[in-house]
Amino acid sequence: MQGTMLYAPGDVRVEQREEPRIVESTDAIIRLSASCVCGSDLWPYRGIEQLNGPSPMGHEYVGIVEEVGADVRTVKPGQFVVGSFFASDNTCEICRAGYQSSCVRRQPIGANGAQAQYLRVPLADGTLVATPELPSADLIPGLLAASDVLGTGWFAAVAAEVGPGKTVAVVGDGAVGLLGVLAARQLGAERVIVMSRHADRRKLAIEYGATDIVTERGDEGVARIMDLTDGLGAHSTIEAVGTQESMLQAIHSTRPGGHLGYVGVTHDVALPGLDLFFSHVHLHGGPAPVRRFLPELIDLILTRQIDPGKVFDLTLPLEQAADGYQAMDERRAIKVLLQP
Amino acid sequence: MQGTMLYAPGDVRVEQREEPRIVESTDAIIRLSASCVCGSDLWPYRGIEQLNGPSPMGHEYVGIVEEVGADVRTVKPGQFVVGSFFASDNTCEICRAGYQSSCVRRQPIGANGAQAQYLRVPLADGTLVATPELPSADLIPGLLAASDVLGTGWFAAVAAEVGPGKTVAVVGDGAVGLLGVLAARQLGAERVIVMSRHADRRKLAIEYGATDIVTERGDEGVARIMDLTDGLGAHSTIEAVGTQESMLQAIHSTRPGGHLGYVGVTHDVALPGLDLFFSHVHLHGGPAPVRRFLPELIDLILTRQIDPGKVFDLTLPLEQAADGYQAMDERRAIKVLLQP
Repeated sequence: MQGTMLYAPGDVRVEQREEPRIVESTDAIIRLSASCVCGSDLWPYRGIEQLNGPSPMGHEYVGIVEEVGADVRTVKPGQFVVGSFFASDNTCEICRAGYQSSCVRRQPIGANGAQAQYLRVPLADGTLVATPELPSADLIPGLLAASDVLGTGWFAAVAAEVGPGKTVAVVGDGAVGLLGVLAARQLGAERVIVMSRHADRRKLAIEYGATDIVTERGDEGVARIMDLTDGLGAHSTIEAVGTQESMLQAIHSTRPGGHLGYVGVTHDVALPGLDLFFSHVHLHGGPAPVRRFLPELIDLILTRQIDPGKVFDLTLPLEQAADGYQAMDERRAIKVLLQP
Repeated sequence: MQGTMLYAPGDVRVEQREEPRIVESTDAIIRLSASCVCGSDLWPYRGIEQLNGPSPMGHEYVGIVEEVGADVRTVKPGQFVVGSFFASDNTCEICRAGYQSSCVRRQPIGANGAQAQYLRVPLADGTLVATPELPSADLIPGLLAASDVLGTGWFAAVAAEVGPGKTVAVVGDGAVGLLGVLAARQLGAERVIVMSRHADRRKLAIEYGATDIVTERGDEGVARIMDLTDGLGAHSTIEAVGTQESMLQAIHSTRPGGHLGYVGVTHDVALPGLDLFFSHVHLHGGPAPVRRFLPELIDLILTRQIDPGKVFDLTLPLEQAADGYQAMDERRAIKVLLQP
């Protein structure tokens, strides 16, 4: 089969890889309907994250079940499934508390590489959710978004305790930030302030329900948020970048007693204790337990109440994955869908 | 009047200071019944925190109202009052959300120096709570504890979402950690694991309801907590020290999805982003909004349901404040009460 490999920073290749097979009796093999490039894939692509030799890429996926192991009970061949980027048993105490991405048996999907034609999904029963029937083609991008970026933006909004009447600040206008806007509005936020410098992203932010746009960054951005919130700061802040600057911007944009949900994979971040201490914010985040939200999100998409698929503004055949990485790296695309 | 001043690290003096007067119409002057030395007073005493010239010391206090400004409505001369270490209006949006120690008009009591005979308390209506009648002498230590260390331990337990059926870890066996144990049990915790190396403190921890003691620190301490919690970590962790080691110990002792309440004033702490990200803990803390809890805590003390005053294991006349600092610095005393 064809699959994407990252050989070195900037060096993405689609090449012939061995087709995956059932290894454990709890595995499923799925034929991918779509995959995509994640903002977090750009970290090793840009050389910021260490690469240990050539690595299969991709951890976002939807597809048709091809084969299941002997112990798989909840999905069967022929079904359309959406999965999350960590395989989880969905039965351990941590999963039952809603933290499937910290499941005691979790396995990263990325290690198997979802930017490919086929994918082995461990712990299929606890990881995959099947749709009631095969979805129409135009819903596939939305369902693919549920696999990570929507689930992640949604978790950030839940972690930030977004709710009716609240003012929400969103730091980061990538796909996760934009879907954080969508999530915030779905969860009842009254006002959603997005920090964005890119016209195309601002447009989508407004489509998803943003009420205010702040183009300034850092301390100036914080000052603007304060202006918009009677000097108090947002009730809830969504952080979807993962840098020192974005984390501090998010902390300082949140009012005392407010909540900050952070989902940007943190790189070279060291949070100064006193900033955090005197901010009085609630801080929660990490790798989104997407599996917790999948049934609800799939339903919202299938009933066309939300359209998270709009974040894909470039679709390429899998063979052109390298172009997709480049387009995202250069910010020519918000998010790239790959068709296997 | 007599009042305590810190001139330099290790140099505490009780000397003649000017008696405070009403400055704002919202002030009250109180004659102190008791004050004490705080763990946080030891930071400048040890030279770890910068000192800008000789400074009045102390921010924990109970006493009798001597005089009030023209606009004070809720307390009157002759009443016994307990206050918190930040003056707050208790009416702004932040106060109403329960974060009085981040009140938009907050003023630090420490600047006026509560280790003295008299104290000016700004924003008296929003800061002080009067008892229904003059309390008996044996209740004064408990009421004094409510002013900071009990309120702080209580806030840590609330921030850590302690509740029925939960396993709680407590990092730090000073007065705040010990009263965190008391708070955790009052809030229904099933199991309270205290990290403690000092026999006298362990004894009080057990009196306050600790069910397990861990004497190891750092990674070994974390490993012991894991042993005691099926490898998952505590549901709720109270951090009451404020160092890099104690914060990491607390983060790593908490299960994914669990809650960490931190109240140790953070010194030279820089939290590594990835540790926090993959821990999946909820982090909340800062200067305790003691005022939020005062009515409830005062009631628990007056009705003798709790006895937080036991943390005072040394009582000295105010003139011997220097001995008190030394005893706490050398860990000969958990907490020192000063009698003006």
